[in-house]
Amino acid sequence: MGIQIERIARDIEIINSFNATPGRGVTRFTFSEPYMRARAYVAAELRQTGAKMVTTLGGNLCGRLEGSTKGLPSVMTGSHIDSVLHGGRFDGVAGVVVALEVARVMAEQKLPHRHPLDVVVFAEEEGSRFGSVMIGSRAWTGTLTSDDLHRLRDADGVSYAAAMAKAGLIVEEEAVLKRGMVKAMIELHIEQSLVLETKGVPIGIVEGINGIKQFGVSLTGVSNHAGATPMGLRHDALQGAARIIAAVEEMAVGEMGGKTVATVGMVSCEPGQANVIPGKVQFSVDIRDLDTEQIDQATRRIMSVIQTTCQTRGLSFDIQPRSDTPPVRLSEEVVRIIEDTAREQDIKTLRMPSGALHDSSILPAVTEVGMIFVPSKAGRSHCPEEETDIEDIRTGAELLLGSVSKIAC
Amino acid sequence: MGIQIERIARDIEIINSFNATPGRGVTRFTFSEPYMRARAYVAAELRQTGAKMVTTLGGNLCGRLEGSTKGLPSVMTGSHIDSVLHGGRFDGVAGVVVALEVARVMAEQKLPHRHPLDVVVFAEEEGSRFGSVMIGSRAWTGTLTSDDLHRLRDADGVSYAAAMAKAGLIVEEEAVLKRGMVKAMIELHIEQSLVLETKGVPIGIVEGINGIKQFGVSLTGVSNHAGATPMGLRHDALQGAARIIAAVEEMAVGEMGGKTVATVGMVSCEPGQANVIPGKVQFSVDIRDLDTEQIDQATRRIMSVIQTTCQTRGLSFDIQPRSDTPPVRLSEEVVRIIEDTAREQDIKTLRMPSGALHDSSILPAVTEVGMIFVPSKAGRSHCPEEETDIEDIRTGAELLLGSVSKIAC
Repeated sequence: MGIQIERIARDIEIINSFNATPGRGVTRFTFSEPYMRARAYVAAELRQTGAKMVTTLGGNLCGRLEGSTKGLPSVMTGSHIDSVLHGGRFDGVAGVVVALEVARVMAEQKLPHRHPLDVVVFAEEEGSRFGSVMIGSRAWTGTLTSDDLHRLRDADGVSYAAAMAKAGLIVEEEAVLKRGMVKAMIELHIEQSLVLETKGVPIGIVEGINGIKQFGVSLTGVSNHAGATPMGLRHDALQGAARIIAAVEEMAVGEMGGKTVATVGMVSCEPGQANVIPGKVQFSVDIRDLDTEQIDQATRRIMSVIQTTCQTRGLSFDIQPRSDTPPVRLSEEVVRIIEDTAREQDIKTLRMPSGALHDSSILPAVTEVGMIFVPSKAGRSHCPEEETDIEDIRTGAELLLGSVSKIAC
Repeated sequence: MGIQIERIARDIEIINSFNATPGRGVTRFTFSEPYMRARAYVAAELRQTGAKMVTTLGGNLCGRLEGSTKGLPSVMTGSHIDSVLHGGRFDGVAGVVVALEVARVMAEQKLPHRHPLDVVVFAEEEGSRFGSVMIGSRAWTGTLTSDDLHRLRDADGVSYAAAMAKAGLIVEEEAVLKRGMVKAMIELHIEQSLVLETKGVPIGIVEGINGIKQFGVSLTGVSNHAGATPMGLRHDALQGAARIIAAVEEMAVGEMGGKTVATVGMVSCEPGQANVIPGKVQFSVDIRDLDTEQIDQATRRIMSVIQTTCQTRGLSFDIQPRSDTPPVRLSEEVVRIIEDTAREQDIKTLRMPSGALHDSSILPAVTEVGMIFVPSKAGRSHCPEEETDIEDIRTGAELLLGSVSKIAC
């Protein structure tokens, strides 16, 4: 019957046997030799299900199991097999192998589906080789042009287009992916965080990809002798920064109700000597939420703290905008279908945002997208210690099969 | 009559004309050519008062005006003429020129003094050339040996002893300075801070040199994805550090009553990226007070905050002791004599600690020491902007003359 977890486990093992850094995590850069061997393995396995294989714009691999009614939009599932340097065995791979297993089961059991099923391996999701993330899905959906693929280069100066050609890939499906071509897309991915493990829930249903606002803050006070300057006569930039950094956390935990995440990841001070009062401090602020209005509110709140703190302490400040990526809402309809299926299968789920970007943040431009998260042990990811329990992958695969079947039928 | 401020102004001008970096502040490293020319000028001026000049252990210049009673201990005054790189015109120089003027006035006016007057130029106070501060006074008082002077080297590998010899200096007075040889020593120095200017008081009377305790603090939490890790599941080392840094200031301003000064001058975090929660933070703590017990109490208080913060936030910590210099109490008797003299001269004074070290923190080992501070404009020091009003120097010189006369009579 249904999902056979041994096949999935074997797929994971074989795909990760193609690895440029054995013993030091998994390194499989897009279009590299290990990558192409892993891609060929997935293609061969898919072909055995009767799927028709094509390479799309941007070098993605797409295997199609035709549906019973001609001309209907497809139901898509898949993820990526490229990795970061010294990465883990599950990031991307988990979503590819469960999609492959769903295709196998649907083919073997002749599960009825009017819509075609597309199993996809998206190319260069991580951006490890060409310095830009999600190139495959962006090229397929027309956000990146052929010119872009000739312009984007790896560390050796080889362009994306040239690397694709050198790997023997020819675009067989030249159509840009447009609304109406795909009914829905569901990606299974490891969570890469601690939420599911901490709450003891095996499945996360992603409601959207967090928007990110980043800016730099410089505070300028007066650098002075740490021994000769009484406390009352100081304009210590670091003391101001400490209050603001603390307020960033308090704001996220308190007023914003705990859904917004806010981080100060970088701090430095000048002159940076133990016996000198810091005259200048620089730090970063990173705010993320599913709701743009929440991000804006958090930003206003932090700005107000910066202003008040600097006024009180006789400091001046400067804000450097860094990045402002809007949130991506996934499909409420697909989220509900996944939830309904989970209820039928008696699987506990949790709605959550994705803090990291995925190909699923590109696809909403052309179709209804849902994401299934499976737990990451200790939240570790992008490292050799990345681990997900095989039973959680089984649960995720069954939920994916049920959800895809429902949408494709 | 008394102090002639034009002579002092001229001395300052001439001494600072001997400068390795004209136009970019004053640079006069110990035993360098500009240093030796400035030293020769002071010696020549002193000689005109009838003083007998000697070079002491450690290369200090000492000019003695004999007293009317033979064999009595001397009264000493002076400071230094070596500077930091691109330093100011007053640090050290102010104390030397007022001492020189005191000698001139005492000689010219034949002011009665049973005790001899010693005007001293201490060598290598700043440590700019040989990397160690107050070498002259430490050698003279026997804290540094002849071996030490052969061991201490400048950036070119030239030893202190060799540099002295190369400058043509021969130790003419080989006696180690011992208790009983000097009745009292008074050094005038610029304040190098903002207290006098802020309070509108022309003279500070130094009660002691602050002790300094420095240690490094490392906090270790868990580095994690800034987007995927909810606020409640973080062990953010920088958020812990922000609370402790703020507490360092609050402790000094609040519980310690504002006399203790405490500074965090250095902070850094790892991995130090805007989108990664800091897993490790390193910062310095510098605590200063005239009272060892206050320093210890402040240290205990900070340790307790570190412990509580780390416990609450699931962080671990490590403390690296750096330096622990005990405070030096100056002579209450000399402080009272200076205060009495100021009252007679109708000069407003303020008792205060010195945050910086001076030769006056070495001399208490062998004699009664007092210090007179004159205001630094905007608290600037060790920079070309270092400035002191000439009228404040006149006030200081008159107070020094009165106090020295009283002790020497």
